[in-house]
Amino acid sequence: MANFSFSMFPNENFLDLRLYQYGWEACAPLHSFGPSVRNHYLFHYIISGRGWLDSTNRDGKTHKHHLSQDQGFLICPQQVTTYCADKSDPWKYVWLEFDGLRVEEDGSVWADYAVTGNFANIAYKEAKKYGEISLAASSEDKNHTYIPRQDQLKLDPQASYFYYCANNTIYGTEWQYVPDTGDVPIVCDMSSDFLSRPVDVSKYGIIFGGAQKNLAPAGLTIAVVREDLAGHELPFTPLMMNYKTMIDKDSMYNTPPCWCIYMLGLVLEWLDSKGGVEGMEKIKHSKAALLYDVLDNSRLFTCPAQPGSRSDMNVTFRSASGELDAKFVQEAVAAGFTNLKGHRNVGGMRASIYNAMPVEGVEKLADFIREFDKNT
Amino acid sequence: MANFSFSMFPNENFLDLRLYQYGWEACAPLHSFGPSVRNHYLFHYIISGRGWLDSTNRDGKTHKHHLSQDQGFLICPQQVTTYCADKSDPWKYVWLEFDGLRVEEDGSVWADYAVTGNFANIAYKEAKKYGEISLAASSEDKNHTYIPRQDQLKLDPQASYFYYCANNTIYGTEWQYVPDTGDVPIVCDMSSDFLSRPVDVSKYGIIFGGAQKNLAPAGLTIAVVREDLAGHELPFTPLMMNYKTMIDKDSMYNTPPCWCIYMLGLVLEWLDSKGGVEGMEKIKHSKAALLYDVLDNSRLFTCPAQPGSRSDMNVTFRSASGELDAKFVQEAVAAGFTNLKGHRNVGGMRASIYNAMPVEGVEKLADFIREFDKNT
Repeated sequence: MANFSFSMFPNENFLDLRLYQYGWEACAPLHSFGPSVRNHYLFHYIISGRGWLDSTNRDGKTHKHHLSQDQGFLICPQQVTTYCADKSDPWKYVWLEFDGLRVEEDGSVWADYAVTGNFANIAYKEAKKYGEISLAASSEDKNHTYIPRQDQLKLDPQASYFYYCANNTIYGTEWQYVPDTGDVPIVCDMSSDFLSRPVDVSKYGIIFGGAQKNLAPAGLTIAVVREDLAGHELPFTPLMMNYKTMIDKDSMYNTPPCWCIYMLGLVLEWLDSKGGVEGMEKIKHSKAALLYDVLDNSRLFTCPAQPGSRSDMNVTFRSASGELDAKFVQEAVAAGFTNLKGHRNVGGMRASIYNAMPVEGVEKLADFIREFDKNT
Repeated sequence: MANFSFSMFPNENFLDLRLYQYGWEACAPLHSFGPSVRNHYLFHYIISGRGWLDSTNRDGKTHKHHLSQDQGFLICPQQVTTYCADKSDPWKYVWLEFDGLRVEEDGSVWADYAVTGNFANIAYKEAKKYGEISLAASSEDKNHTYIPRQDQLKLDPQASYFYYCANNTIYGTEWQYVPDTGDVPIVCDMSSDFLSRPVDVSKYGIIFGGAQKNLAPAGLTIAVVREDLAGHELPFTPLMMNYKTMIDKDSMYNTPPCWCIYMLGLVLEWLDSKGGVEGMEKIKHSKAALLYDVLDNSRLFTCPAQPGSRSDMNVTFRSASGELDAKFVQEAVAAGFTNLKGHRNVGGMRASIYNAMPVEGVEKLADFIREFDKNT
């Protein structure tokens, strides 16, 4: 049988490229190279535009592309600019702080942060360098096993923005609702569940996400920015960290990460062939339900993430002992399932089932868990 | 005949990938994919170490690699850390300023900048946000057609650092010497001539360069940092822009741009097969000499860059009129030579002959120029 990697970073170990060959038939990136016309323009493919992603080459030809309202990947009001840049992961925190949404006349910035996991916590700590940052909610009291409810959020109606991280990869939790913050712009890190479901962009001020989970190889960040929020940078904001620079230059102030953008184009084509984000939402939910169902009905395993907060992208589970967890991981590897060991902060196991993971891979893992549970 | 692209950004148009197939026989990146052991570790390939580039995968296996002293790519004293990050072009300016070498007790930073072209000028302007920046030299008086001599540099022996950009892509000039700055650390942007010749790293405080010219696809920056210069960041320096963060985390604080690093590994193997940087220095110099010789002996063309300041990477030239330049560019494209049009700031023509450009491509261009000169 084929091997399956359940990794936090599917793009880090080439496994995803093998999955492209195996399950991502529409992508076939390994066989599509060469000086074809299509590749030629795709490699030039720059993301910009007003409410959609364009691909533009240096000859000035523009190819309206992929993430447009028409294609249905995002529901975008017209004042939104979607752009990309060559940074991944924590860059985006910095970026955001530097752009300092709604800086007050005295130069101060304040914002509310919901800390529901590791990356939200990094963002929260980084933000404190630049303004008065309040904890709108923290799930640390229960080791980040839940997402706060709307009535648990302590929101300041005068805040510059409210920040949350949509999916917490380490803890296996995911926000199932978009918080109501009144007029306060919502800033959301969607790194690990971007394009796994429809998103109503009009509810957000800024959405950003590293590409390395559902979108493209590591090295690319996508940001969707409400244009009136750009251009309010703090005085020491570097040119390259100012959203306005990127918007004005169509994401091309510097040489963009062309390969990642090219791959993003292929991934979006593949996503389209799967029914777009609506199609992906059904697939990812059925994949996750398959695992949660087996785990909830097992003798040995429990899921730390509370029902109602469970992630469809990262399914965390554990047995009663570290030894048994280790035995499970070891036997799983022998059976062809890799990267199931949980993050060192929490132990246990984690199956990352991003968009690229085929249903078959999840079915086989569910079977394996069931057998292990029966025979151990 | 084959087509040749003389581009400032060889990696932006797939041409370089075709060149890999055509001339970069040791790379063959398009055919080497798949779940082979070698690719597996190369995709994990993280650059770090003390004085060399390592590749390390998440399993903890380390593969000493490529840029080591033994391999001769760089002459590295042991206290130097080489690392990589997922940013290109102007990120590095920001980065440098934030790390604020030798911040004084009162929090001030001052530095000397030599402005010899576009990117040096961006760096100079950005730096002014963060400290007292002096112009050590500027070649703007002659439209950046020359590199200042040592005796033209106005150097402050108390400066935090001295900055220069080794090769100026738009203007076709290149520093032919390493400035003597006494005890002041030299910070050098080698983006566009990195690994085209041997570099004595011990003469520098920090070397950095976007990978997109000679090293790898866009989206990767290499920095070689004297370790005692790291960790002096300004108080508002983002975590991700602090050299120390990256050094402490072996360039892996965030998910690194794996594809670019993988490609870098292949490029370094190819470079090794060409005799390393010593071999490349001979090749690149003979390529450039071929063009300068034809141009100096032509009726129609002149080279704006002054002898002694001429770049081996970007050969700029022009005729007496914009019309004739346009005619040349048009006929060149028809004959298979693309991207020869000069930058809009200077007009004329520019042949970018980075490491990846085969000798044959330069010979054919030289022939074309000679014929055009004879027949026009």
